[in-house]
Amino acid sequence: MNNKELIGELSRRLGYTNKDATQLVASIVSIMGEELQDGKTLSFTGFGTFEVKKKMERITVNPVTKQRLLVPPKLTLTYKPSPALKEKFKNTSADE
Amino acid sequence: MNNKELIGELSRRLGYTNKDATQLVASIVSIMGEELQDGKTLSFTGFGTFEVKKKMERITVNPVTKQRLLVPPKLTLTYKPSPALKEKFKNTSADE
Repeated sequence: MNNKELIGELSRRLGYTNKDATQLVASIVSIMGEELQDGKTLSFTGFGTFEVKKKMERITVNPVTKQRLLVPPKLTLTYKPSPALKEKFKNTSADE
Repeated sequence: MNNKELIGELSRRLGYTNKDATQLVASIVSIMGEELQDGKTLSFTGFGTFEVKKKMERITVNPVTKQRLLVPPKLTLTYKPSPALKEKFKNTSADE
């Protein structure tokens, strides 16, 4: 499912126009991006938690030249599904 | 930020009532959950991709009793931020 399909499904279920649903999805994406950029954690009941975590700096060694290189600290976005959402996959067989 | 704060911010920006914004957020969460349960990948421009991946079965050994145990295959939900969202964190210093 992509943005367009989510927008279509949302309009169908709630009776919004395509234009309104498009604006809504775009606003949610911007709000979430802004919050994360401000270093805030997003925690949505029934879905999960998004958090920006800092990966520490580390030293790599080029195996050919043996040159050591310092990789600077990096910010990465992590996601952890909520227990309720995780539970849904538990009940789905992994063999399917 | 939690559900309630997202709903508040959404109403403020787009002029929806709290009730409508609550319904919208709940619908998006259900739609996403349903799609993922159906084994579909969610790919939202500007935000990222959610995908249910299968972790293979593996054998663990209890270090005390030496007993071998088969851990069954498991479905887990993964998230990968979009390049555009990743880029936002690159420009934020990790030293802050």
